[in-house]
Amino acid sequence: MIVRPLVDKDRIIHELDTLAGFSDTPKPAITRILFTKPDLGARAYLKGLCEEAGLRVREDGLGNIFARWEGSAPELPAVATGSHFDAIPYAGMYDGTVGVLGGLEAIRALQRSGFKPYRSIELLIFTAEEPTRFGIGCLGSRALAGVLNPESLRLLKDQEGKSLEEVRWEAGYMGRLEDVQLPEGYYAAFVELHIEQGPVLEQEHVPLGIVTAIAAPASLRVGLEGVGGHAGAMLMPDRHDALCAAAEIILGVEAFAKNSGSINTVATTGFCEVYPNAVNSVPSRVKLEIDVRDVEQSRRDQVIRNIIQGVEQVCTRREIKYSVDIINIDPPAKSGSEVLKALVEACGDAGVKFKLMVSRAYHDSLFMARIAPTAMLFIPCREGVSHRPDEYASPEDIALGTYVLALTLAKLSLAEGRGSGKEEPMMLSD
Amino acid sequence: MIVRPLVDKDRIIHELDTLAGFSDTPKPAITRILFTKPDLGARAYLKGLCEEAGLRVREDGLGNIFARWEGSAPELPAVATGSHFDAIPYAGMYDGTVGVLGGLEAIRALQRSGFKPYRSIELLIFTAEEPTRFGIGCLGSRALAGVLNPESLRLLKDQEGKSLEEVRWEAGYMGRLEDVQLPEGYYAAFVELHIEQGPVLEQEHVPLGIVTAIAAPASLRVGLEGVGGHAGAMLMPDRHDALCAAAEIILGVEAFAKNSGSINTVATTGFCEVYPNAVNSVPSRVKLEIDVRDVEQSRRDQVIRNIIQGVEQVCTRREIKYSVDIINIDPPAKSGSEVLKALVEACGDAGVKFKLMVSRAYHDSLFMARIAPTAMLFIPCREGVSHRPDEYASPEDIALGTYVLALTLAKLSLAEGRGSGKEEPMMLSD
Repeated sequence: MIVRPLVDKDRIIHELDTLAGFSDTPKPAITRILFTKPDLGARAYLKGLCEEAGLRVREDGLGNIFARWEGSAPELPAVATGSHFDAIPYAGMYDGTVGVLGGLEAIRALQRSGFKPYRSIELLIFTAEEPTRFGIGCLGSRALAGVLNPESLRLLKDQEGKSLEEVRWEAGYMGRLEDVQLPEGYYAAFVELHIEQGPVLEQEHVPLGIVTAIAAPASLRVGLEGVGGHAGAMLMPDRHDALCAAAEIILGVEAFAKNSGSINTVATTGFCEVYPNAVNSVPSRVKLEIDVRDVEQSRRDQVIRNIIQGVEQVCTRREIKYSVDIINIDPPAKSGSEVLKALVEACGDAGVKFKLMVSRAYHDSLFMARIAPTAMLFIPCREGVSHRPDEYASPEDIALGTYVLALTLAKLSLAEGRGSGKEEPMMLSD
Repeated sequence: MIVRPLVDKDRIIHELDTLAGFSDTPKPAITRILFTKPDLGARAYLKGLCEEAGLRVREDGLGNIFARWEGSAPELPAVATGSHFDAIPYAGMYDGTVGVLGGLEAIRALQRSGFKPYRSIELLIFTAEEPTRFGIGCLGSRALAGVLNPESLRLLKDQEGKSLEEVRWEAGYMGRLEDVQLPEGYYAAFVELHIEQGPVLEQEHVPLGIVTAIAAPASLRVGLEGVGGHAGAMLMPDRHDALCAAAEIILGVEAFAKNSGSINTVATTGFCEVYPNAVNSVPSRVKLEIDVRDVEQSRRDQVIRNIIQGVEQVCTRREIKYSVDIINIDPPAKSGSEVLKALVEACGDAGVKFKLMVSRAYHDSLFMARIAPTAMLFIPCREGVSHRPDEYASPEDIALGTYVLALTLAKLSLAEGRGSGKEEPMMLSD
């Protein structure tokens, strides 16, 4: 069969705009944090859209949402697409959401075209890809992949000291955490549509990127405890100022990444909290959170070792107590070859140029890759900007990505075998 | 007459403890910010104590509280004592409050002893010595001295954007701001009892310090605006990270103070706010607040020039937009000789050793010195610690300071002339 998905560009843009209305900050700044009011409102909206499309919706105890279009072989592992819809404070309206609403529209486009799935096709909407509330990214996909077990989940607390258990119950998610991890072989393939969050596609005028690997992210939390006191009365030689120590560490993080020997190393001190944070008080405590990434795990790990050593040196010299916690240190992921093949063929069918590329940003696909052959499809975003209110992807690029995603899902749905890294023939009847 | 004030040590300690209960944080951490519930509760408690002591209480439109013990010559300028009762977040229970409740107990001790004031004696309880809410220290005393005029007061906004006008009205303070400035010659003298907020008295085993000058404080606000973005996707050479620029400035502030050539120079970056403050976002904006003090105005001003130049250099090199606002830059104050004389004589009468010293901390006395002969009386505090929950002054030192304060107020109350920096004879009948 020849599949010609009919993508409704206006509808997806309208839905993205409606979704952006679920936010704690006014448009264009989007703030949508796990299990806050905007997050719960967005969930209700998305589930409604899925039901309207005739999909069977279920949710797990963490709030991951599964919307299934049943195929003619419902007993076979399904093909899935999806992304996240949460947003860090003052973020934009495309990160994650393009993959959620684009995934849904890809399914609807296939429905409109008369396509009949063989394997079921499932839209997977992840809980909390952003680490805002519990300090750990990809909460939902980690749990689905069994990377975070129920015991670890039960230990998580947000910055106000509320446990994940408490907030998920308040949000109405009372399912057993033991049931969140997906059984072995649940999915035949997973593919995620996403904005690039980098400038390459735009600069090279290529409309699509096919991701062959996702960089290995890690994050650290550094606690510093010096000696506070009155800013007027405490003489300089007597000081053990936690913020001055933090300043040295922040500059060290920057320098270690810059001097790693590769342009692909990035390190960021994104979070800095000072106590008591009053102009006339010598800072006694500082908490830093540091993000380190590289496509090469060994180079990234060397930067992490350098940072930890730097913290030790600075704090020993300044006589400041310190702690370093590794919040997460994940291995990089390679894309599944059968999903890559389907994406490449879909681009060919659509007659669209694509670029094979590496993702330096964190994605739920990093964890999905542990339990299913996985790949990502990138669309350009303006000036590579993301996590900011002026984040932007054009309606044309979103529609094109959705179209190629639909073609890819169709190919994967019709594929007989369930791959696990081996090349397998595609069964396309056309 | 021989004045023998009868200080009730247990009562003042009990009242300090009760006052500490008005706090947004549990004891021993005290948080009492202008016109919040604890601040309003403390006001009601203090006014009640003043009325109980038979003092005539009035308040101005900013919430400065005046409690007068009328003398036999009520037409003459009064003698005043007092301090503040607000507290920065997680502060201690002695800073300011010792001068408020010590001042009240000094008056009660004189009442108990049968002393009859000639000039009226007034307890002056200042609004917001700490800069927490409106970013400017000594709000009440600045306004009393005419250093902040009504137009400037009306422009003030807190960090949530609420104006001083709004919050004072909500707190029930609706008096005209035009009536806050005290008329010329309102006070014959002002003396403030306070903990040292430094280690000198304790280290030298001297129970009292008489302050001959208050160091000149200044504070700056630095705004930095770089370019935000995704911590994974934004390559290091493309970054204009506002927090890295801030880190260089924080270390510069420290270095300029250390290298000023004098131990008396202190500079502190006490406040640092990062936006969006998420581990996976490159910081786009940072706000710093910097405090610089010295007993020498010219040396302090040189440090300020160095900091401003440093901000310019760092931000030009990093291509980051910046702003520097001088929040306040006050001249130092010299104590009034007639008040110093009364304090020295009172120490002599009490048979107590004292040390002449300089205050490096900010005090309402800095502004009172502009409108009345002013001096301060310091008592030791443990390890020089202040602005922390473990701030501590012993009951014995508090009672002794209160006793000497009472003797001093008695002398000043009986003095005929109103000085303005000239030596004048004390009229003491004993």
